[in-house]
Amino acid sequence: MVKVILCGCNGKMGKVITEAIHSFPDINIVAGIDKFIDIKNSYATFSNINECTALGDVVLDFSRPDALEDLLAYCTENKLPLVLCTTGYSPEQIDKIADTSKKIPIFRSANMSIGINIINSILRNISKKLYKDFDIEIIEKHHNQKVDSPSGTALLLANTIKESIPEETEFTYGRVGNCKRKNNEIGIHSIRGGSIVGEHEIIFAGTGETIEIKHSALSREVFAIGALKACEFMKGKGPGFYNMEDIINNN
Amino acid sequence: MVKVILCGCNGKMGKVITEAIHSFPDINIVAGIDKFIDIKNSYATFSNINECTALGDVVLDFSRPDALEDLLAYCTENKLPLVLCTTGYSPEQIDKIADTSKKIPIFRSANMSIGINIINSILRNISKKLYKDFDIEIIEKHHNQKVDSPSGTALLLANTIKESIPEETEFTYGRVGNCKRKNNEIGIHSIRGGSIVGEHEIIFAGTGETIEIKHSALSREVFAIGALKACEFMKGKGPGFYNMEDIINNN
Amino acid sequence: MVKVILCGCNGKMGKVITEAIHSFPDINIVAGIDKFIDIKNSYATFSNINECTALGDVVLDFSRPDALEDLLAYCTENKLPLVLCTTGYSPEQIDKIADTSKKIPIFRSANMSIGINIINSILRNISKKLYKDFDIEIIEKHHNQKVDSPSGTALLLANTIKESIPEETEFTYGRVGNCKRKNNEIGIHSIRGGSIVGEHEIIFAGTGETIEIKHSALSREVFAIGALKACEFMKGKGPGFYNMEDIINNN
Amino acid sequence: MVKVILCGCNGKMGKVITEAIHSFPDINIVAGIDKFIDIKNSYATFSNINECTALGDVVLDFSRPDALEDLLAYCTENKLPLVLCTTGYSPEQIDKIADTSKKIPIFRSANMSIGINIINSILRNISKKLYKDFDIEIIEKHHNQKVDSPSGTALLLANTIKESIPEETEFTYGRVGNCKRKNNEIGIHSIRGGSIVGEHEIIFAGTGETIEIKHSALSREVFAIGALKACEFMKGKGPGFYNMEDIINNN
Repeated sequence: MVKVILCGCNGKMGKVITEAIHSFPDINIVAGIDKFIDIKNSYATFSNINECTALGDVVLDFSRPDALEDLLAYCTENKLPLVLCTTGYSPEQIDKIADTSKKIPIFRSANMSIGINIINSILRNISKKLYKDFDIEIIEKHHNQKVDSPSGTALLLANTIKESIPEETEFTYGRVGNCKRKNNEIGIHSIRGGSIVGEHEIIFAGTGETIEIKHSALSREVFAIGALKACEFMKGKGPGFYNMEDIINNN
Repeated sequence: MVKVILCGCNGKMGKVITEAIHSFPDINIVAGIDKFIDIKNSYATFSNINECTALGDVVLDFSRPDALEDLLAYCTENKLPLVLCTTGYSPEQIDKIADTSKKIPIFRSANMSIGINIINSILRNISKKLYKDFDIEIIEKHHNQKVDSPSGTALLLANTIKESIPEETEFTYGRVGNCKRKNNEIGIHSIRGGSIVGEHEIIFAGTGETIEIKHSALSREVFAIGALKACEFMKGKGPGFYNMEDIINNN
Repeated sequence: MVKVILCGCNGKMGKVITEAIHSFPDINIVAGIDKFIDIKNSYATFSNINECTALGDVVLDFSRPDALEDLLAYCTENKLPLVLCTTGYSPEQIDKIADTSKKIPIFRSANMSIGINIINSILRNISKKLYKDFDIEIIEKHHNQKVDSPSGTALLLANTIKESIPEETEFTYGRVGNCKRKNNEIGIHSIRGGSIVGEHEIIFAGTGETIEIKHSALSREVFAIGALKACEFMKGKGPGFYNMEDIINNN
Repeated sequence: MVKVILCGCNGKMGKVITEAIHSFPDINIVAGIDKFIDIKNSYATFSNINECTALGDVVLDFSRPDALEDLLAYCTENKLPLVLCTTGYSPEQIDKIADTSKKIPIFRSANMSIGINIINSILRNISKKLYKDFDIEIIEKHHNQKVDSPSGTALLLANTIKESIPEETEFTYGRVGNCKRKNNEIGIHSIRGGSIVGEHEIIFAGTGETIEIKHSALSREVFAIGALKACEFMKGKGPGFYNMEDIINNN
């Protein structure tokens, strides 16, 4: 049994975690932390981690960047693994996370979905074998309320490809007019519409054949599952910095 | 039996027609016209239509815009239907075609594939029913040697949608940075890679559901089949201007 | 403003309706009916429609077939339109619905999604034009807990195609061994896996070109939206039998 | 420069090779072998390899199984690498090929496309990581004249998955009626229609997310390119048995 302290338990993702935990018989939430404590949960909820009286095996964080300092202090003091799923840390905070991972086990991934991480590792492997004979393009689709283009995940995948190829590549975000494709271009296309949760497709187009690799997220639950798998994985680990690919390669 | 005089018989599409005719037992090529007459065909080949000694039921043209005048004169004199598959006519030439269609039957379509024309008529029908609740985006894919973006066919489809919608719409050819989708946008995305013959996909993305309509051309043969179906259709027609939708609606 | 009485308000779909109503400013739930009345809703809830004290414009039903008699009686007495979204009626019940629709307006559709109904009407229109030159196959995908194959919606679409084609067709549900496709076959393929909500794709494969029409349901919300649009549409209608295509053609 | 002796040069694939060679400036056909020698090629053509007077670096075979004995003898005598692309060998012939590969370099792959082999090696890698949490299904599409189902390539990919998974799996070739998916099923679905050259798609469907990996062959040229890459690769190799994955891993 893995006992989890869930920070940000009353936020959007906190609620999804609280729901998703039912399909993980070996994981339990022993306490929730949230500055909004008016919601009733099936576990005790505290407004700050320093007030938490429950004993956990892992701290799972879906709160905000400004909670980082308290989290690192608490986990260091209690020698607990920390699973960080919050985004938007400053470069200084990222340095501090790396530093602290020498003392305690810390998990952090750019994307918490198992599927995206599998695809990312496929791309790292095949891009260098294919780039000479195949043109690479990325299509991502999201709902019409998304503000930024391309998605962070599309950029993550595109950068993995870029780093796997020995030659210089450049990203192109759309085409209009006379703009014949250059050999070293990677096209990134952002489709926006309706309530699409998130799709990412990488196309390798060669002479007479095409390979397409596609990921579809059906709901936020995907990220909850990834986070809970990370909690299972991190229980009992030694100090160090871990990410989703460690979990995948451990399977 | 439909007897066809094939103009531009030794060009790229002329050769495809000469090959595709084998699957049309009721159509025969009785003469070819091409200024390059050094290729041996199974039918007599003349360097100019005015030298043609064979009698045909229909003239099928896959040559160049500058052959138009001769073609119109020949068909008017011989009261023959003319199927025009050449592209790149000037506005004056297009006017002349319209004028001549009062005297003889003339067929001309922006795209000769049955499938694209079916989809175009679907779009004309459903866009006005869906645009209020669904966001519309177009993805087209072509080989890496294509110079222009988006494809002529993508623009044809996009304009059909635009004309079917009572509100003002605008085309967007890519997204990068902060660019939240506007309600009246139609995204048009041009993917280029390998030897892809031609794919066009229209996405209607609504709340909780998505409709996708996709056409894939596997080879140039598609355009030959459309052209030969047009020849069958045009035999014996009276004066007037005809296009692919007349054939489809006739089925 | 459309005032709705929601039957089955505490069931799975009832809850989705109660949530989805927030995006419909012009619709209000004035009362809920459910034999389980222990859930607190923002509207008054009664265990039987005969106890309902609220005045509505439309009765929307997502309950069970055995509630039909009470519903028909209540709507006839109060001259209210009835939107039936329950499935599993007996032939006798279906006859009774048809009979009662001579006295009051009744709405019922095999599928409540706007998108599926749009595709169904596209298929009715294009199948007869394409069947001679194109082979038709259907792929449907659902989650791994679905018991029956193919899905009811796949059969709905397949039957629409069958009825649109003058020649006799037969359904094929898989291929193994020596089984060259017959001309009049319609392949229906049921993919099952994970938590896929529901995808239906119809393929028209011709010589050198393919048309694909695809519907993806992202969540149950789709059916709620369809049902609420039906309520808006039915308010004030005269006696008769209505379905989703009436709404679509009205747009 | 790689000098190739092409066996079966006047067959379907021989002609495709003769055409495709133009995009390979570093490969030359120095002689063709075919029992039908009435076609004029740009290289000398002999009715039997024993009559061949040209000197080659590699022998490329797209002929028939009964030519095997002559080919093995010729290559052993002349110490030439042999690239075998013929299918339909008997178990005895396959043993003989393995035996001879101790004396000379022999190349043979179940599928000559680079893309299919890349996907096959991806599947070997990820299936064991995903099978516990993801359901696996395969969809393959081919033209309506294909006699057997599923395709040989679909079976190749399915067997790779089967062998990568420690638990027992079973193949299912279609679903109809009450047939809830079993955990250890791999569904294989054969779509047939029009002139589709060949598509293979593997779906990994999990909770809340789906990974799809798809290969599309646009023309036979794919197999020619793979064969010619094999010729380049095999020039100068020592005795042994090689296949397409050796080429891919060498990139």
